[in-house]
Amino acid sequence: MTERRVAYTAPRTLALDTEGTATTPPPPGQVTIDVAYTGICGTDLHIFHGAMDARVHPPAVIGHEMSGVVAGTAPDVTRWRSGDHVTVMPLISCGQCPACRSGHRHVCHRLVFLGIDATGSLQTRWTVPADTLVRLPDGLPLDHAALTEPTAVAVHDVRRAELRGDEKALVVGGGPIGLLIALVARRTGADLLVAEPDPYRRGIADSLGLATLDPTAVDAVQAVGDWTAGAGADVAFEVSGAEAGVNTAVDALATRGRLVQVAIHPVPRPVSLHRFFWRELTLVGARLYERRDFETAVDLIADGHVPAKTLISRIDPLDRAAEAFALLESGGGVMKVLIDCQSDTGAHAR
Amino acid sequence: MTERRVAYTAPRTLALDTEGTATTPPPPGQVTIDVAYTGICGTDLHIFHGAMDARVHPPAVIGHEMSGVVAGTAPDVTRWRSGDHVTVMPLISCGQCPACRSGHRHVCHRLVFLGIDATGSLQTRWTVPADTLVRLPDGLPLDHAALTEPTAVAVHDVRRAELRGDEKALVVGGGPIGLLIALVARRTGADLLVAEPDPYRRGIADSLGLATLDPTAVDAVQAVGDWTAGAGADVAFEVSGAEAGVNTAVDALATRGRLVQVAIHPVPRPVSLHRFFWRELTLVGARLYERRDFETAVDLIADGHVPAKTLISRIDPLDRAAEAFALLESGGGVMKVLIDCQSDTGAHAR
Repeated sequence: MTERRVAYTAPRTLALDTEGTATTPPPPGQVTIDVAYTGICGTDLHIFHGAMDARVHPPAVIGHEMSGVVAGTAPDVTRWRSGDHVTVMPLISCGQCPACRSGHRHVCHRLVFLGIDATGSLQTRWTVPADTLVRLPDGLPLDHAALTEPTAVAVHDVRRAELRGDEKALVVGGGPIGLLIALVARRTGADLLVAEPDPYRRGIADSLGLATLDPTAVDAVQAVGDWTAGAGADVAFEVSGAEAGVNTAVDALATRGRLVQVAIHPVPRPVSLHRFFWRELTLVGARLYERRDFETAVDLIADGHVPAKTLISRIDPLDRAAEAFALLESGGGVMKVLIDCQSDTGAHAR
Repeated sequence: MTERRVAYTAPRTLALDTEGTATTPPPPGQVTIDVAYTGICGTDLHIFHGAMDARVHPPAVIGHEMSGVVAGTAPDVTRWRSGDHVTVMPLISCGQCPACRSGHRHVCHRLVFLGIDATGSLQTRWTVPADTLVRLPDGLPLDHAALTEPTAVAVHDVRRAELRGDEKALVVGGGPIGLLIALVARRTGADLLVAEPDPYRRGIADSLGLATLDPTAVDAVQAVGDWTAGAGADVAFEVSGAEAGVNTAVDALATRGRLVQVAIHPVPRPVSLHRFFWRELTLVGARLYERRDFETAVDLIADGHVPAKTLISRIDPLDRAAEAFALLESGGGVMKVLIDCQSDTGAHAR
């Protein structure tokens, strides 16, 4: 079979490379995967826009939310065999820096993130270190399993919040990560409320039984006050990446409330430190995930607590990746978009 | 004896009121104290500048860092008797609001702070609810005991930091609260470093055995990097109230570091939320103190761990309060200034 890959070649440009590559056995310690699906995430869009050219040097194969089937292993790899269904936790840590030495390898000072700092999964075959693989259970559809990585983000965020079952949590931003946070958080028994301006996204949240509000139509802080009998939310997840979202999260919190900072804010934001002082609030930064978050994420998708099917808006073939990116950046009307990495337009019959 | 008091009557104006007041027995549940000393704090300066006229309505007797001797008790007060040496935890909580009901009475939504929202201690006699009193041990000099309230702030801040003995902490700002935080924090076994531009204040810190740096002469973030072998500080206390201080604290923190927000920032500050995300930092707001903090503070002063004598720059008589405020607002050359509330210029022989 001809191997194919989608490369980011310049801002706003993705190129399909269909030239055949001789299939070589993976080097020591590595595994080759036939990639089944790759999800497109906000970071991929940032790369597509050229905003991350300091880290991503074209031509670069991107993509890091994936599922696949082991196609080959190096002779020294004994834990995996061809045919195993897997996903990849796309982090390579140095093991030597202060973060690694203090036990926080996922925020290694020299972290290599596969799909950003090294070759990613938007291709038919991907070769990665064996210790990045995470096993998928039998029977878990591979398209659903492609949501493991963003679900692991949500698991990590909820864990950082130390959310309890008797608490109320506001999720500011109802895109894929916001909804995954709400779904994961709901398992604790906590009450959830999702603030999201886009009606399509609110509709999906509603269909999943999540309470929502439209922050362009109502005063979100006032609404949280009404919801909590004046106390404010115990936890707020800031997933919007917008200055207004930060203000909403801060102002909506109860005394001793915790704000989990999930979204990436490229510039410093004006923050009411007085409010942090006055109500003794806590702001908790949350980045990526640890291995246990990844394994929990697999379980949550496999047991249906994360209804992957509802969150997948569409699946496009590999040679239509550029169109899928363009659709996503246009905003509304989609939640998660996957690329079927074994399919092209000719073969795709979905 | 004629009762005397100092009232804030208008911005930048303090008036000594020497008119006699008939000594009346305290109302039920209350105690009258002969105030020995009242310390002047940054909040008192803010009031003096007129910046808190929304809460402080002239003429108002201010002051809340104090020590004194019980002069009289209401008949229903049984825990206290004349002659007891006491300080006052100047907080009255409603007991009904969400903060009180969740166990955080010190940040009550309707908190009455004595000396701000109600009459304070810059007077010869002060009548307060009996349950605000905190007992002072025999032999503790009353001038030293007047530092209990700011020391309680520091105890609370260090407790909020969850500082451990194997950690390194940066204190940004070496005024009275900054130094008290460093002194209290040092008891945990942690290594401390105080960043303070004023040479007089650095000199006092040095004399107390605290490591210091001058952030106007060296790059504080680089210095912390050198101090911590590149890891960054485990904890930073932001006590400066300045935008630059916030940036220093954020940039100096190690992965998973905690920033304790102590100072009051009257306007929102640009904060690098990206850094909070990237290093999984935590920001912890800390306000005032709880009763156990106050009791710990008394112990720390009584056993000499907080060397009150070194921190008290001068003691002025009650009729010189206005001059003391003017001196403090001029900045350098003083640490803590006390007012001797039983003394006037004629009687004062220090």
